[in-house]
Amino acid sequence: MTQPTLEDIVSLCKRRGFVFPGSDVYGGLSGFWDYGPYGVQLKSNIMQLWWKMFVSDREDIYGIDAAILMNQKVWQASGHTETFTDPLVECSFCHSRFRADKIDLGQCPTCGKVKTFGEPRQFNMMFKTIVGPNWGSFEADDGNYFSKSSQVKITNKHGDEISSIGIIEREDYNGLMVYNKGAQSYLRPETAQGIFTNFKNIVDSFYPDIPFGLAQQGKAFRNEISPRDFLFRSREFEQMEIEYFVRPDNWQVAFDDWIAQIRKWCLAIGLPDNMVHEFEVPPEERAHYSKRTIDFQFDFPIGRDELLGLAYRTDFDLKNIERASGKSMEYKPKDGTKGFVPHVIEPSFGVERAVMAVLTAAYKEDEINGAKRIYLRLPADLAPVKVAVSPLLKNKPELVDMARKIYKELKAAIGEVVWDDNGNIGKRYRRQDEIGTPFCVTVDFESLEDKSVTLRNRDTTAQDRVNSDKLSKMLVKELKR
Amino acid sequence: MTQPTLEDIVSLCKRRGFVFPGSDVYGGLSGFWDYGPYGVQLKSNIMQLWWKMFVSDREDIYGIDAAILMNQKVWQASGHTETFTDPLVECSFCHSRFRADKIDLGQCPTCGKVKTFGEPRQFNMMFKTIVGPNWGSFEADDGNYFSKSSQVKITNKHGDEISSIGIIEREDYNGLMVYNKGAQSYLRPETAQGIFTNFKNIVDSFYPDIPFGLAQQGKAFRNEISPRDFLFRSREFEQMEIEYFVRPDNWQVAFDDWIAQIRKWCLAIGLPDNMVHEFEVPPEERAHYSKRTIDFQFDFPIGRDELLGLAYRTDFDLKNIERASGKSMEYKPKDGTKGFVPHVIEPSFGVERAVMAVLTAAYKEDEINGAKRIYLRLPADLAPVKVAVSPLLKNKPELVDMARKIYKELKAAIGEVVWDDNGNIGKRYRRQDEIGTPFCVTVDFESLEDKSVTLRNRDTTAQDRVNSDKLSKMLVKELKR
Repeated sequence: MTQPTLEDIVSLCKRRGFVFPGSDVYGGLSGFWDYGPYGVQLKSNIMQLWWKMFVSDREDIYGIDAAILMNQKVWQASGHTETFTDPLVECSFCHSRFRADKIDLGQCPTCGKVKTFGEPRQFNMMFKTIVGPNWGSFEADDGNYFSKSSQVKITNKHGDEISSIGIIEREDYNGLMVYNKGAQSYLRPETAQGIFTNFKNIVDSFYPDIPFGLAQQGKAFRNEISPRDFLFRSREFEQMEIEYFVRPDNWQVAFDDWIAQIRKWCLAIGLPDNMVHEFEVPPEERAHYSKRTIDFQFDFPIGRDELLGLAYRTDFDLKNIERASGKSMEYKPKDGTKGFVPHVIEPSFGVERAVMAVLTAAYKEDEINGAKRIYLRLPADLAPVKVAVSPLLKNKPELVDMARKIYKELKAAIGEVVWDDNGNIGKRYRRQDEIGTPFCVTVDFESLEDKSVTLRNRDTTAQDRVNSDKLSKMLVKELKR
Repeated sequence: MTQPTLEDIVSLCKRRGFVFPGSDVYGGLSGFWDYGPYGVQLKSNIMQLWWKMFVSDREDIYGIDAAILMNQKVWQASGHTETFTDPLVECSFCHSRFRADKIDLGQCPTCGKVKTFGEPRQFNMMFKTIVGPNWGSFEADDGNYFSKSSQVKITNKHGDEISSIGIIEREDYNGLMVYNKGAQSYLRPETAQGIFTNFKNIVDSFYPDIPFGLAQQGKAFRNEISPRDFLFRSREFEQMEIEYFVRPDNWQVAFDDWIAQIRKWCLAIGLPDNMVHEFEVPPEERAHYSKRTIDFQFDFPIGRDELLGLAYRTDFDLKNIERASGKSMEYKPKDGTKGFVPHVIEPSFGVERAVMAVLTAAYKEDEINGAKRIYLRLPADLAPVKVAVSPLLKNKPELVDMARKIYKELKAAIGEVVWDDNGNIGKRYRRQDEIGTPFCVTVDFESLEDKSVTLRNRDTTAQDRVNSDKLSKMLVKELKR
């Protein structure tokens, strides 16, 4: 077969409990997704592998975990408050809203009316919220406090009142709270700024040799105008980012090394080299502060699109923080030479896009005895389940007892091992294939006689007889490949 | 020594890079904290141990990971929109705001004026935000759309205008967006509701035998009026929650079992039995839906206070979802007997409180050769660093080479091993003691002759000579205890 379609992936994810639509029971919330049991494990395995490769196994990278809500000065200094926007248009007839660069502006896709769009306006994609106890009275822009009996009137351009809300009468003050500007905050649209704001803390506490990196995994939020394509463009997602601090004259060496590291990562999560493409972003398309950016693109079911990015951000972020905080971000080398503000190489990984790429690369169909079979050829260390153990029949205590013993032993040695006695053996294999379980172990009547069990291989569907005493050691070895 | 003070803990956390104030470089944001390298690792070790004990090692509990932002119907159905409130008072003179039940209302703690507080009002602690592209025009409560040229006027009780905002003139529409009520959402104040909303998904995909549990780890947010006591009452925190679904007539057995499981957990993270106290919450203090609640309290430096909770929530949550969604939450037993809505036992763990309790129990002071020593007696599997490897002198290549070889070997076998050649050996031990590193390995000149190294024990400060060939195997064994 060729590539799976997006529908193939979405359907398997729902059917096997990897990913469900967010708030499903209430009809959902556009752009949000929930992970089911196997999805949690797959995502966690991807994130742990990343942490191992880029933090634990290295001496030059330090992990941090900053809060999602930060002082709004972070986003003013970084430029997000001003420029983290998408162009938005609205149909003047049906009031549907669209990203101006994603639709043909001649006709409204919702109501079909022609020429109903005005000029695009810039829509800031950060989710806003208010921190602190903001009711009862509210500070106005002009520094006045609104009293509890203040009135809010909304009028049209002719001055006619179209809505009037007495604050005191409402339990839910909603947006009126935002006039207390000091406490406005945003759900971070990227984890990167949580790293930059901790640069000084880490240098002061650890004084690492340069070059060094700070790494973070965590949620980020973007109020996308049109979330789409399953996990690909969602409003809540997880990032894995590194800010790698270098001497200004040394950025090219570090940049090249990161290209190699990223290639290694892609292979480690099972993405074939020929499905990952480096797109050298031309100067006119790069962020103004970036001197070089490579988008690593993947052949998703929706087409070739960005999987992760690598950017040389110069000293843009640390210099912004210096200006906004009045604190020096200079790094003083241990050899006593002149201090400098480090430059930054940023490899930025999206977890959801990694999950989609991993599923896309792993999704396989073949035919077994004339019947179509779907299976996930996941790398063993990413598979949510490594081994499934079953008794051939669940109502035969002697089979169950022996299988239980083996299950317990494998669980202790391997960890992600499940007990599966639902349905007949054919159904179990089918289910475990779709979950991507590399091995299934079945205890049958022969097992009772000679201690052998059936070891079934996900990829080849080969069924071998293996001595149960040797099983654990053998599987540990096989799964480490 | 007796208990450490809160200042002892905070100071060590900052000094050694466990926890920093959130948005530190910009003067902070009250109620938010960032984890540094050792804090990330400690927190992650606690969370992974929990996941192993309560999810991976059990067959009856399934992991999930729901989005932080959910459809607002979730919070209407659960009652949070109405009742998740704290009583708030405001000083009519200086406009400072306080939790009414936490201060003496006779005199304002900020400005000192007397009798300036009015009646307390209920302040909802959920952070609000708006999902979707909400500018340009906004739906009013009465169903009208505001056009781009609509004006918003805010008047005082006499009708005098005190602020006027023309929507079209502002780049930042702030609170005006909230009039599009359909898209209002909240940062979840607990992970529990993300579990309940997925109950049906899991039953449909996995059809588990009852009793079974759903577990989730993740961020939650509460807009506390007065965040306080370091990580203890912060506005952003991590929870680990299980909803354990049982037959209605079987809740007491499950409840008792969870008491035992929680006790086991507390011991596993190094909390002595005599510092953990069960507080049986009396009926008049329990949530109205709970038939039994136990608060597990810990002797924190700030006094005895809640570490985690165990509640019997009856069928309150699933019944609410049935009502609000119109979908049946009935569980149909496999034996064909009558279906029922399961009842729920909820063990609810706060990660930050676990971190604080672990640090409190581990924090020790003693005296070595007349000098005060501080160390963290962390359980080995929670320690952010298991072993630190050092050459006695960093400018002797032969020492460095041998130490490097040992470091590499231990890293491969153990994982959380660090290279430490900063400062002299005394300073290194002091630093590793404060991080809670169980073992330090030092390569000295004797090592070059007889392959022995110094193995230094954190708790006893004993320094033994150990053959470097036997080191790895010995440490793996020691760390497993």
